[in-house]
Amino acid sequence: MAKLWGGRYAVKTSAVFERYSNSLASDTRLTPYDLKACTAHVQMLSEVGVINEEDARKLLHTLNEMSVQVENDELTPSGNHEDVHSWVEAELASRVGPIASSIRIGRSRNDLVVTDFRLWMKDELLYQQEAVKRFQQILLTLAERNLEVVMPGYTHLQRAQPVSLAHHLLAYFWMLERDRQRLIQCYRTTDVCPLGAGALAGSTWPIRPERTAELLGFASAFENSLDVVSDRDFAVEFLAAAALCMVHCSRLAEEIILWSTTEFGFMRLSDAWSTGSSLMPQKKNPDPAELVRGRTGSVIGHLMALLTVIKGLPLAYNRDLQDDKPTVFAAADTLGSSLEVLAGAMESAQFQNEKMAAAASDPGLLATDLADLLVRSGVPFAESHELVGRHCEGDTDERVKPLLEQLTTASAVEGRTHRGAAGFKAVAAQLDRARNTLLV
Amino acid sequence: MAKLWGGRYAVKTSAVFERYSNSLASDTRLTPYDLKACTAHVQMLSEVGVINEEDARKLLHTLNEMSVQVENDELTPSGNHEDVHSWVEAELASRVGPIASSIRIGRSRNDLVVTDFRLWMKDELLYQQEAVKRFQQILLTLAERNLEVVMPGYTHLQRAQPVSLAHHLLAYFWMLERDRQRLIQCYRTTDVCPLGAGALAGSTWPIRPERTAELLGFASAFENSLDVVSDRDFAVEFLAAAALCMVHCSRLAEEIILWSTTEFGFMRLSDAWSTGSSLMPQKKNPDPAELVRGRTGSVIGHLMALLTVIKGLPLAYNRDLQDDKPTVFAAADTLGSSLEVLAGAMESAQFQNEKMAAAASDPGLLATDLADLLVRSGVPFAESHELVGRHCEGDTDERVKPLLEQLTTASAVEGRTHRGAAGFKAVAAQLDRARNTLLV
Amino acid sequence: MAKLWGGRYAVKTSAVFERYSNSLASDTRLTPYDLKACTAHVQMLSEVGVINEEDARKLLHTLNEMSVQVENDELTPSGNHEDVHSWVEAELASRVGPIASSIRIGRSRNDLVVTDFRLWMKDELLYQQEAVKRFQQILLTLAERNLEVVMPGYTHLQRAQPVSLAHHLLAYFWMLERDRQRLIQCYRTTDVCPLGAGALAGSTWPIRPERTAELLGFASAFENSLDVVSDRDFAVEFLAAAALCMVHCSRLAEEIILWSTTEFGFMRLSDAWSTGSSLMPQKKNPDPAELVRGRTGSVIGHLMALLTVIKGLPLAYNRDLQDDKPTVFAAADTLGSSLEVLAGAMESAQFQNEKMAAAASDPGLLATDLADLLVRSGVPFAESHELVGRHCEGDTDERVKPLLEQLTTASAVEGRTHRGAAGFKAVAAQLDRARNTLLV
Amino acid sequence: MAKLWGGRYAVKTSAVFERYSNSLASDTRLTPYDLKACTAHVQMLSEVGVINEEDARKLLHTLNEMSVQVENDELTPSGNHEDVHSWVEAELASRVGPIASSIRIGRSRNDLVVTDFRLWMKDELLYQQEAVKRFQQILLTLAERNLEVVMPGYTHLQRAQPVSLAHHLLAYFWMLERDRQRLIQCYRTTDVCPLGAGALAGSTWPIRPERTAELLGFASAFENSLDVVSDRDFAVEFLAAAALCMVHCSRLAEEIILWSTTEFGFMRLSDAWSTGSSLMPQKKNPDPAELVRGRTGSVIGHLMALLTVIKGLPLAYNRDLQDDKPTVFAAADTLGSSLEVLAGAMESAQFQNEKMAAAASDPGLLATDLADLLVRSGVPFAESHELVGRHCEGDTDERVKPLLEQLTTASAVEGRTHRGAAGFKAVAAQLDRARNTLLV
Repeated sequence: MAKLWGGRYAVKTSAVFERYSNSLASDTRLTPYDLKACTAHVQMLSEVGVINEEDARKLLHTLNEMSVQVENDELTPSGNHEDVHSWVEAELASRVGPIASSIRIGRSRNDLVVTDFRLWMKDELLYQQEAVKRFQQILLTLAERNLEVVMPGYTHLQRAQPVSLAHHLLAYFWMLERDRQRLIQCYRTTDVCPLGAGALAGSTWPIRPERTAELLGFASAFENSLDVVSDRDFAVEFLAAAALCMVHCSRLAEEIILWSTTEFGFMRLSDAWSTGSSLMPQKKNPDPAELVRGRTGSVIGHLMALLTVIKGLPLAYNRDLQDDKPTVFAAADTLGSSLEVLAGAMESAQFQNEKMAAAASDPGLLATDLADLLVRSGVPFAESHELVGRHCEGDTDERVKPLLEQLTTASAVEGRTHRGAAGFKAVAAQLDRARNTLLV
Repeated sequence: MAKLWGGRYAVKTSAVFERYSNSLASDTRLTPYDLKACTAHVQMLSEVGVINEEDARKLLHTLNEMSVQVENDELTPSGNHEDVHSWVEAELASRVGPIASSIRIGRSRNDLVVTDFRLWMKDELLYQQEAVKRFQQILLTLAERNLEVVMPGYTHLQRAQPVSLAHHLLAYFWMLERDRQRLIQCYRTTDVCPLGAGALAGSTWPIRPERTAELLGFASAFENSLDVVSDRDFAVEFLAAAALCMVHCSRLAEEIILWSTTEFGFMRLSDAWSTGSSLMPQKKNPDPAELVRGRTGSVIGHLMALLTVIKGLPLAYNRDLQDDKPTVFAAADTLGSSLEVLAGAMESAQFQNEKMAAAASDPGLLATDLADLLVRSGVPFAESHELVGRHCEGDTDERVKPLLEQLTTASAVEGRTHRGAAGFKAVAAQLDRARNTLLV
Repeated sequence: MAKLWGGRYAVKTSAVFERYSNSLASDTRLTPYDLKACTAHVQMLSEVGVINEEDARKLLHTLNEMSVQVENDELTPSGNHEDVHSWVEAELASRVGPIASSIRIGRSRNDLVVTDFRLWMKDELLYQQEAVKRFQQILLTLAERNLEVVMPGYTHLQRAQPVSLAHHLLAYFWMLERDRQRLIQCYRTTDVCPLGAGALAGSTWPIRPERTAELLGFASAFENSLDVVSDRDFAVEFLAAAALCMVHCSRLAEEIILWSTTEFGFMRLSDAWSTGSSLMPQKKNPDPAELVRGRTGSVIGHLMALLTVIKGLPLAYNRDLQDDKPTVFAAADTLGSSLEVLAGAMESAQFQNEKMAAAASDPGLLATDLADLLVRSGVPFAESHELVGRHCEGDTDERVKPLLEQLTTASAVEGRTHRGAAGFKAVAAQLDRARNTLLV
Repeated sequence: MAKLWGGRYAVKTSAVFERYSNSLASDTRLTPYDLKACTAHVQMLSEVGVINEEDARKLLHTLNEMSVQVENDELTPSGNHEDVHSWVEAELASRVGPIASSIRIGRSRNDLVVTDFRLWMKDELLYQQEAVKRFQQILLTLAERNLEVVMPGYTHLQRAQPVSLAHHLLAYFWMLERDRQRLIQCYRTTDVCPLGAGALAGSTWPIRPERTAELLGFASAFENSLDVVSDRDFAVEFLAAAALCMVHCSRLAEEIILWSTTEFGFMRLSDAWSTGSSLMPQKKNPDPAELVRGRTGSVIGHLMALLTVIKGLPLAYNRDLQDDKPTVFAAADTLGSSLEVLAGAMESAQFQNEKMAAAASDPGLLATDLADLLVRSGVPFAESHELVGRHCEGDTDERVKPLLEQLTTASAVEGRTHRGAAGFKAVAAQLDRARNTLLV
């Protein structure tokens, strides 16, 4: 295998170990970012006079050529190389000769790999944030359509009080909004350029990390070379944000599964988003929701994995960190596809309004309001609560009887008018705020 | 046991279940916050006319009386109550009679408990953020004192290149700075008032959640009652930030342990921060660092616990969430004390500068700079790297020989002058930026 | 604070650090085991002549005296001691003078603490195993009572095929049986005595670890002193078994919650095992099940915590391990109480047989059997599956029509007669096997 | 896409969802097991007369043909199929026509997939157990070679007492032995055949699950169809065993990393098992050990993932479980390769005996024995400990002085003779026990 080191090595690397340590396959998605980073690095080295103009021109021209080919799928890492950086240098050398190794001046793989990783992460965070937003938009549209649909709100999975279906859908809108803000926050953490930190100590060459940062579109260069070569906070932050977003998705998934049961019957997934059974011909299963709920486990597992990897690592770079990328890649793929799948399943689903209405007409859902009426009539709260409790068991107090006819499901929903409440008017105002949130 | 419900219940609650579900002990630290929340709620109910002036005056006066007693340790939750909220109402009732239950008008335990929790969390986040800052200040002072102390920088725990000890210490300063920013960010997530969301749907009383939020010093009221009663994002965010901060602490702990070995010998903990052995009289063990490293595991475990609890929960409140508080309390206690312990151990430790200097004078640490000199003399980078590799194995090329005397450890450190590098001048500038960071 | 070390120490230990490292409170439950271990150790030392007969007699008498007092709650660790071992020695010294420190001959705290821990763990494993068995017994009794109750079996939470309620209950019986076997297996892993391993290397005294092991009722003594002082495999095994057992409990909890909904209506928890709402008078919530499901998260978290603590620890003992005990204690307490709570809730619950029967009479549940009839009549399986699928959508093939009346829910359950199947006869045989399993 | 269901479906499945739910790629390694399971199922169906002799002969012949082709890499799943089961049936149908679907009689994908999974797991467990054994053999050989090499034993990473290098190596032998026993135990848990459980309830066909189990070499058939279709205990057990084995590997990896430092200098990895730096020509890094230590995180993460997936799932099969296989496959691959890599690195490493001996000659390592001598001379243990502690600080008591010359490193090691101790004689006996252990 071609390597970027080996002057001291008499013996060939063990094949078992080469296989175990190779990262070329998982690095592939970093290729365009590695070329970008090398390009900016050469440009900066040329500006400060470390690489002469002619060499720089040749290197930049060829790096650009390679970038275009990669973008057009005409060039992809292959062959026997340790990682994408080795492949890039080897490919470059095959085109420009020995000056290719100049790209290694004033930097190391330690700073380069994490520069690539951060560049990829920034793009990915923008993409994920858009995926969240698309899902929010779908929920918003569904909420707009179902503002006056009444369903039972639940606590402890017991029917509690009637709410607008739009209110229920918007609850997920706001969870996703917090997720989106966390992704944006993670972007800021990621937006620091490590290039020039070298192996751990920076360089004796007159490099200008601020300039490299600027060329690559980072908000700033690193503060401390020892820190930045082994700083994976941005990856942990992403995994934590991804795990929590998946947890939110898993809650909606749980409800899709519940609502799709014959017993609840509040919802029907489209045939395009259901699965049958190889044995039981009658089945329509809510597999998309089950898969999303299940894959939440893997993203939580990835977060666990990376925290454990970093725990107890001395400064600075240690090879343990190599698995940060496959871990984050897997979590990002799962998050992105889960958001898309859940959004698709929801968008095409049919709500069964009559089933919801029937369930919401359960008189138990008015018990709170009944107690409130008693309080308004002068009975202390604790006593009102007790009287209504007894009424639910069939023992109705004289003071309760006249109030019973004053209450309807409709009045119970309509009566909740304050900010954030489940009533139609309040939800209409909430919808306005939700819409505005997406404009920002 | 006195309960806030039970009108429908004929049978006594099982004693086993009462023990299992009781949260009074762990709730104790919420007591002042529960009183604050009740106070604001009563004040708002009085302003909108739901509680009449006289009742309100009596309730507010007594709640204030209780708050003062709690603050002075003259009153503490006790007796047979399900939780702190039941105790507060019972205590209030013992002082003002049946109107005590008016505090339950227009809210539920579901919104109250998470209001208490958020109020506590906000205070705790300020405290934790200060603890991080104190630790940063200590690292900064140590860095200032050790700017010109040279030590080997490591990668893969192999000596790599010489660095300033200050640079090494500042690497942790920046990790902690990111931790501090995450705590501040988490404060913003927490700063939303749930009171008035009720059990899940808000209330038919003319309550004003915005006013309650204002009275309690929250930045805003909730957007969606269904969401906010089961939203624990702030707790997950805190646990994620705490886990990552502990991971950073565990990295420093690992280095304290390594540096305290006879083999490294770079550091001696003060006797006040070491432990002996019951068997081996010669021992001075770096137990504070080992305990911090170990307790990192428990905080990661708490994060895993809460994510798992929330995963798959349908809307809205489910009792599964009860353990959010003990989990967060334990993590917060561990984080706060670990920061204090690690700061104390570092502050009183002695660096062994001569041992560091001796290790840093290892000629291998100059290999990179030697290769750089060869590159400056016109040898391509790849070839230079190879020649120096061979030189390390005793096979010194003619082109290498004349360069050997041009290099010293001092020049290697001094030569790294760019932003973020390990050289003295660069670190001095970094110190300035670090100092300014703490001023904000 | 009184310590078992300090000859080399000029400076007082920091109070902050003392608080952070103290384990006396959590050690309390180890007290009887520490006394047992000290007793066996002294006995062995006396037998091999290291402690003279008179001293041995005095020490053994006093250790026994203390054990009795501890058992009778007349003596409990208190005061300013690092841990339970320091307290035991101090208490002993207060009764017998300087010879008390002879208990430290030929051992260290490193081997003592893990001896105590294993002794406790063995008792706890027996207790947990019994708790599992009691729960199995309750499920068995419920299954016996409900053999001929028919309910829908579910996959994907969609009604699938009719099953006996007993079959459903027994599914949990077998999960618990595997849990019980894991606890028994863990007992074997735990049943190794570490006493005499000393700090890490054993002792130059002529001790006989095999004898100490025998006196303490362990199956064997340690093989390797370096290994055994930091071996916590037994604790990890227990946490893994506990986590999986809690996961099983959480599955049953999920079903209790589902079945208690108005929508399913298959089950009613007794009032003694339900909770009401402080706001909504109509509520009866399945809180025991929700709490069990939630606490599963904390046990999984404890497992993660300990694995993370041990990961990357060099040999032999490191102080990181101190938190193994609080972690295992917390998990054991949660497991034991959760088993008791879930068993209690199930035992007193009422199944709603008519609701189950009604749901089981859903004709979709016979689709598989309908397809099977078609196959028996000569239609290939794939085509039969397709024809019945279309029939479910209202498009009934001529070949299907005559078969419809041949099928009933009862025949569908009765027809499943092979080993392990859901039919009455098969379940009766299964009940026999389950009963026999508990006899072992 | 060709599917095993769809009679009820009018609309095409969404392409996004098809991609998300497809498991064909990760199922590939199950192909031979799926063919085995189908073969045994057809054989049993034929024996009980459900499939006629001619059809059975044709099906068995063709399934065997396919098996041979798969084994010879002439046939591999491909094309647009949901999973390996769909592909097998389609491939079979292309060879034998409509009777292919007879393989679906009396079973479902739910029982088939977990039969395949268990068959694979059993083979994998044998392989992993052998991999552990090979590693144990290497440690045993190294221990035999290094019986009389003395090194410092450590606690808290502080030098504690001298030990035989063989003793240190054997500590890992015993950890691995416990791992091996856990894998064997897991084999027993896995050795139950689910085939015939169908979707959840078994079948109305006269199938004989005991016979299928026998044909497939399982120790027994399932007890309860509802349980077995969603029982993944064997997978969790494997992940827990794998995680703990990786934790043990990570401990050895940590020591390889420490011992390879210039500061310790106890060990040199072979060049074939080291890595250089792209920047620093002098570097030889212990990357195999770092990678093993890091990958431990991912296996812990996989365990976390699966526990979270199963938590809270109602009976019986839910699609969440689909990710059990990729999770277990990834963990198994990591475990197997990590064992091989660590064994290879250790086998070819060079111990630096002189560096170890020099470190072991540190007089502090004799402090315990010095205190023991004082005790033998009649000084109480506590006082002896104190006197030696002061001696370490340069304050030597008159009673201590004459004892100093009685102690040497050699005598300290030789003097530890009891079972499990670190002395040469004790370790020789331990080696015998270790050898015998591997014979079983």
